[in-house]
Amino acid sequence: MKLIIIGAVAAGAKAAAKAKRLIPDAEIIIYTQEEYISYSGCGLPYYVEGNFESAEKLIVRTIADFEKNGIKVFNFHRVDKIEPEQKTIKIINLQTGESFENNYDKLLIATGSKPYMPNIPNSNLNGIYTLKTIQNGIDIRKKMLESKHAVIIGGGYIGIELLEGFTQNNVKVTLLEKNYSIMNTFDEDITSIISAYILKNYGDSINIITSAKITEFLGESCVRGVKLANGQVIATDMVVVASGVVPVVDIAKDAGIELGASGAIKVNSRMQTNISDIYAAGDCVEKINMISDTPMWVPLGSTANKEGRCAAMNICGVVDDFEGILGSAVTRFMDMTMSRIGLSTKVAESLGYDTVSVIVTKKDKAGYMPTVGYVTLKIIADRRSHKILGAQSIGSGDADKRINTLSTGLIRGITVEELNDTDMTYAPPYSTSIDPLIDAARILKDKLSCCTN
Amino acid sequence: MKLIIIGAVAAGAKAAAKAKRLIPDAEIIIYTQEEYISYSGCGLPYYVEGNFESAEKLIVRTIADFEKNGIKVFNFHRVDKIEPEQKTIKIINLQTGESFENNYDKLLIATGSKPYMPNIPNSNLNGIYTLKTIQNGIDIRKKMLESKHAVIIGGGYIGIELLEGFTQNNVKVTLLEKNYSIMNTFDEDITSIISAYILKNYGDSINIITSAKITEFLGESCVRGVKLANGQVIATDMVVVASGVVPVVDIAKDAGIELGASGAIKVNSRMQTNISDIYAAGDCVEKINMISDTPMWVPLGSTANKEGRCAAMNICGVVDDFEGILGSAVTRFMDMTMSRIGLSTKVAESLGYDTVSVIVTKKDKAGYMPTVGYVTLKIIADRRSHKILGAQSIGSGDADKRINTLSTGLIRGITVEELNDTDMTYAPPYSTSIDPLIDAARILKDKLSCCTN
Repeated sequence: MKLIIIGAVAAGAKAAAKAKRLIPDAEIIIYTQEEYISYSGCGLPYYVEGNFESAEKLIVRTIADFEKNGIKVFNFHRVDKIEPEQKTIKIINLQTGESFENNYDKLLIATGSKPYMPNIPNSNLNGIYTLKTIQNGIDIRKKMLESKHAVIIGGGYIGIELLEGFTQNNVKVTLLEKNYSIMNTFDEDITSIISAYILKNYGDSINIITSAKITEFLGESCVRGVKLANGQVIATDMVVVASGVVPVVDIAKDAGIELGASGAIKVNSRMQTNISDIYAAGDCVEKINMISDTPMWVPLGSTANKEGRCAAMNICGVVDDFEGILGSAVTRFMDMTMSRIGLSTKVAESLGYDTVSVIVTKKDKAGYMPTVGYVTLKIIADRRSHKILGAQSIGSGDADKRINTLSTGLIRGITVEELNDTDMTYAPPYSTSIDPLIDAARILKDKLSCCTN
Repeated sequence: MKLIIIGAVAAGAKAAAKAKRLIPDAEIIIYTQEEYISYSGCGLPYYVEGNFESAEKLIVRTIADFEKNGIKVFNFHRVDKIEPEQKTIKIINLQTGESFENNYDKLLIATGSKPYMPNIPNSNLNGIYTLKTIQNGIDIRKKMLESKHAVIIGGGYIGIELLEGFTQNNVKVTLLEKNYSIMNTFDEDITSIISAYILKNYGDSINIITSAKITEFLGESCVRGVKLANGQVIATDMVVVASGVVPVVDIAKDAGIELGASGAIKVNSRMQTNISDIYAAGDCVEKINMISDTPMWVPLGSTANKEGRCAAMNICGVVDDFEGILGSAVTRFMDMTMSRIGLSTKVAESLGYDTVSVIVTKKDKAGYMPTVGYVTLKIIADRRSHKILGAQSIGSGDADKRINTLSTGLIRGITVEELNDTDMTYAPPYSTSIDPLIDAARILKDKLSCCTN
């Protein structure tokens, strides 16, 4: 069995290691454009911040580790074409320029995602970065340490994580967000609290401009400013574009592999594409949201790992199904945790659900404990079935605990009434005697019984 | 409507407040032997430790607060008899010695639990304490601050919490546990790790003696030592007996109210006893374990609050059901969190389950983050149905997160395979890309498929 894997950050690396364990004498070859393989891309903002010294700490397994296990790794190699009928691929060695072909029995596409670059004049100036690879992280940290002002474009997860990192390094930041609010996988009733928290506590060094329309980068060889549609010019020493990511699907699409509505590769629960012996996993594939049973594209390292493992098993003849995602996510800005799961009100309503929701703000621990903080929790339910559709939780460190608590219930279609009946742990250093989740469930239960009576 | 409530720590106090909101012109009278009502008993060990200055911080609502709402509170009053046929109770004013009667329309028994006192000679010496009331907490803290050595009898939750408190205040402690291991609501494969952690890190000031048989307290007026069956004498300045608690059911039993197999009051899901118009809630009642559907007595403040609320609703004519408990609990010793849910292996097997379990020790966050710690997680499943029966989690701060994560799934009968499919939040400061729960579920899934194939 000869398995070729294209890309090896999370899904590809995981699949290679798993396939080698399942079929030790399989021939496994990895091609990647990048220098590094098998690293935690999610950790890059924390490297930039300086939470640890060496970016190499992000590497899970080195190329030498893979080679030692008999997996051949070709870094700085780009795959340009897949020819499914011949079961061959065309590769270019980026260091020598040499082109060559190779053939496969099974092919795994794990090309991942790449930063979305909005079309802004002068995007090629020095000092404008995106954050995807380890080298990007090293470059951004180096530049940050010699900068006084930075512009971050995009107030999503990576933008917010970099905002923390820059602020911790005493760099003043202007955050430009094209939408009405930052962190907009959350509903606006929650994002308004996030923005208020950031500006109240760090308003001296952070400026947030929403509904921002950028017309131009300014500067000679190096970026010196960002110009907005209203004429405003924001002077800056550097820019990081964190305007989201897009799936890398060009060679898949060219080969006739079907894409989903999201633009990412469509696979079944065994990570098979529509073309025989071609699998795909990780950020480049579309996932099923298990709550709404609809396709969605949510690129995350945790999911990529699971998909890579699932792909390897099926490639090796062991049946395994990846059932989908719940849309679980977490990040932080300083001591504010922001976490979500399932459908937001806006997404649920766009899918036709009749939603009912509640927002509570509660202490996260017994009020007399020295480490007490607050958590603001939103729970969204379906008015007809009373099933919980999603939740959002922000606040002190433990806010993500409440989101994970919902995860195992969501996979089983838990109702508001069942959440209200759930017995959660209590001790003064860990929670209030009635957990904020139970409080929220009780209010939602009352709301639902009022509406149906 | 005239409601009399006996006892008012958690269930009684909650019920009084809720009933008053539901029927504002109801006559509500509380009798309690204690000075204080409506306080967080679970917070007492943290007061002893010195996490906050005043024990009064533990009071949720004062007597004045209740009186302001039109609820009559008689503290230092003991109810000695219930006469269900006449619907009267007999009360004694402990300050004046005066006896009197009162009649009720509805009666709520919320007499709670009391420390179990093993029958040891010289138990009446000064310097021997139990921890139940606020006054107990004040007395223990005062004595602790002038002590160099203490003996704690009992290595359960309260014993372990006091062990932390005493250690933080530089008091050397000998912990005596009559069972084979401390913290024995956990399985021994977990308790052995807990003991090892305590002794490794605090062995200079803590001594743990398990299978300890105490024969006598030594001393003249004040306790000076504890004598064991093997002749060993442990010199000490004070003793706290934390050998568990028993439900306070004497007056209920005398009145013909049915007790369950556990010895606590038997109630239905509406908190009704077998006698009409008499309800019971809180630590004095038996609960249903929702996993095994068997009665169990687990006295906890979180449950008492819910039961008090449920009792008040049914007393006031609003139908509400308290479905039961999952056996969720958490505590800490220093930076080790100990948390559990559901059935332990030993309890599950005693109930006839054929169990299969897994223990994993994993990083709780991305390995490169500065705050990384470890969590040891045990998951127990039923070999036939593959349903998860329980879990135990110990380790750094977040260990309780994994237990709560299982709670909403357990209420819906989640299987090992479904847990493996669950999508949990991931970001480097919060978890590993594959959560320890998912890792454990995967191993357990493999174990189960090996055994059934």
